[in-house]
Amino acid sequence: MRITFLGTAAARPTVGRNVSSLIIQREGDVMMFDCGEGTQRQMMRYGTGFSFSDIFFTHLHADHFLGVIGLLRTLGLQAREEPIDLWTPRGTTDTLRQAVELGVERVPFEVRIRELAPGDAVKRGLYDVVAFRTQHRGGLSLGYAVVEHPRLGRFDASKAREMGIPEGPLWGRLHHGEAVEVDGRVFRAEDLVGPERPGRRVVYTGDTRPSKATIEHSRAADLLIHEATFAQDEADRAQQTGHSTAREAAEVAREAGVLRLALTHFSPRYADDPRLLEREARAVYPDAITAHDGLVIEVPYRDG
Amino acid sequence: MRITFLGTAAARPTVGRNVSSLIIQREGDVMMFDCGEGTQRQMMRYGTGFSFSDIFFTHLHADHFLGVIGLLRTLGLQAREEPIDLWTPRGTTDTLRQAVELGVERVPFEVRIRELAPGDAVKRGLYDVVAFRTQHRGGLSLGYAVVEHPRLGRFDASKAREMGIPEGPLWGRLHHGEAVEVDGRVFRAEDLVGPERPGRRVVYTGDTRPSKATIEHSRAADLLIHEATFAQDEADRAQQTGHSTAREAAEVAREAGVLRLALTHFSPRYADDPRLLEREARAVYPDAITAHDGLVIEVPYRDG
Repeated sequence: MRITFLGTAAARPTVGRNVSSLIIQREGDVMMFDCGEGTQRQMMRYGTGFSFSDIFFTHLHADHFLGVIGLLRTLGLQAREEPIDLWTPRGTTDTLRQAVELGVERVPFEVRIRELAPGDAVKRGLYDVVAFRTQHRGGLSLGYAVVEHPRLGRFDASKAREMGIPEGPLWGRLHHGEAVEVDGRVFRAEDLVGPERPGRRVVYTGDTRPSKATIEHSRAADLLIHEATFAQDEADRAQQTGHSTAREAAEVAREAGVLRLALTHFSPRYADDPRLLEREARAVYPDAITAHDGLVIEVPYRDG
Repeated sequence: MRITFLGTAAARPTVGRNVSSLIIQREGDVMMFDCGEGTQRQMMRYGTGFSFSDIFFTHLHADHFLGVIGLLRTLGLQAREEPIDLWTPRGTTDTLRQAVELGVERVPFEVRIRELAPGDAVKRGLYDVVAFRTQHRGGLSLGYAVVEHPRLGRFDASKAREMGIPEGPLWGRLHHGEAVEVDGRVFRAEDLVGPERPGRRVVYTGDTRPSKATIEHSRAADLLIHEATFAQDEADRAQQTGHSTAREAAEVAREAGVLRLALTHFSPRYADDPRLLEREARAVYPDAITAHDGLVIEVPYRDG
């Protein structure tokens, strides 16, 4: 999986950072999460292409969704025909529809607005996108966990050859757990296939206070992308505005035992130089990094 | 007067050009014309500041107005208190109001939406902003002429001294055309004040076919900012979509006898390299320039 950060500023853009958006690519699938004003231009700048299928909105504050209006219009100018799915927290369809229709000119493809509640999973073959409740201001807000299904264990091809099992469909059946018969001999999958291997898990919080739900959905995640709007000296403000400090984000990461932590959504005060946020986070979770616009993070399988 | 181009691309942004917006500053007054998506970030990038009073919309196509939503929200975050006037073509208040209200959170200052019809003049002391009809697609669209009132003629101070008129209020009265009396002698303004001097005129078309109204309102303008979406090989497309070619824009400038012509609103096809547009325009109007994002044009008084 590959994550591209398109906007890492809170509330309003700065010269160096646009407002929230990121892209997650997984094999052929491209999904956007949040789409602040100016996202389409960031996509051009960072070369993500426009062939994505879904936008998942964490909540409909202006800096997280206004970019969808111009983006849909541009997709229309590109003569897109494929439908697009806009996933949005339960109860926000009307606002999102108003936004989409503000573009004035009709787009030549289907725009499907679909509401999600905490716990809902959008199923995608080999992975799900799972929505969970976050704690922000004003109505339901969601974080998202992209959760791959466990992969089959490793198939021991050299052992299969030694045993005289002919390469071909039989190998596939064994790999999927079936027993097979060759010349009257029965071979069992457990003798040739290793233990099931975990899939990857990438979590994006959107705007939130540190929360149990985030910890729960981020257990052993390969990457947690957590908002970190403020430094610790603005901890009160973080609480009042429904945001997290960098240290609080790091505490969530530590508690969940995630493999990597990327901080994003920085208040303009730290946008030019987020090193204070990084230091405060690293005091708790040493490998924390601060994202920047255009940052690409590759998330490999842990077992290669 | 100083013009700052904030966006010079048609329809959708490119990496190098944002969608339409420009700022006109005249002494303390700062006015924005059009406000495409991402304009607030362009303002930061090009250092225009945020202390402007008005936005004049030429029409409400997405690439000319969507930026107002996030911009108003950012002004709110900056704790602006001064009201802002949004001037928009007659019949478009509802759309603009919907956009403004999409920002969700209430802004802490007054947003006044005011409709304009062709011929309406917004009076501003020493200058007017005059709306005129343009020819685009879908409803009324407007161009704007910023028209300074004529200035008083030059006051000949050394002659006034020679004549023994004491410096002070009497000079001011003479300068404004009154006759004054000093020790029984009468001095007439016409002997001390030169002819009235013309004010400056800057015209911005927004999106339009070449039109008589533009020519009429641009007569002897100091600067005409005309859209030039296409090159001549797309003249048919320009006609179909309600736009102008660079040559057509130059013909308008020549016909109106303007002092300077700046082309803007370039189709993505020419956005990276508008030299073809420049060449085609210069064949008709030799001093045409193509605008780029961040370009600043100073418009001096012709007589210094």
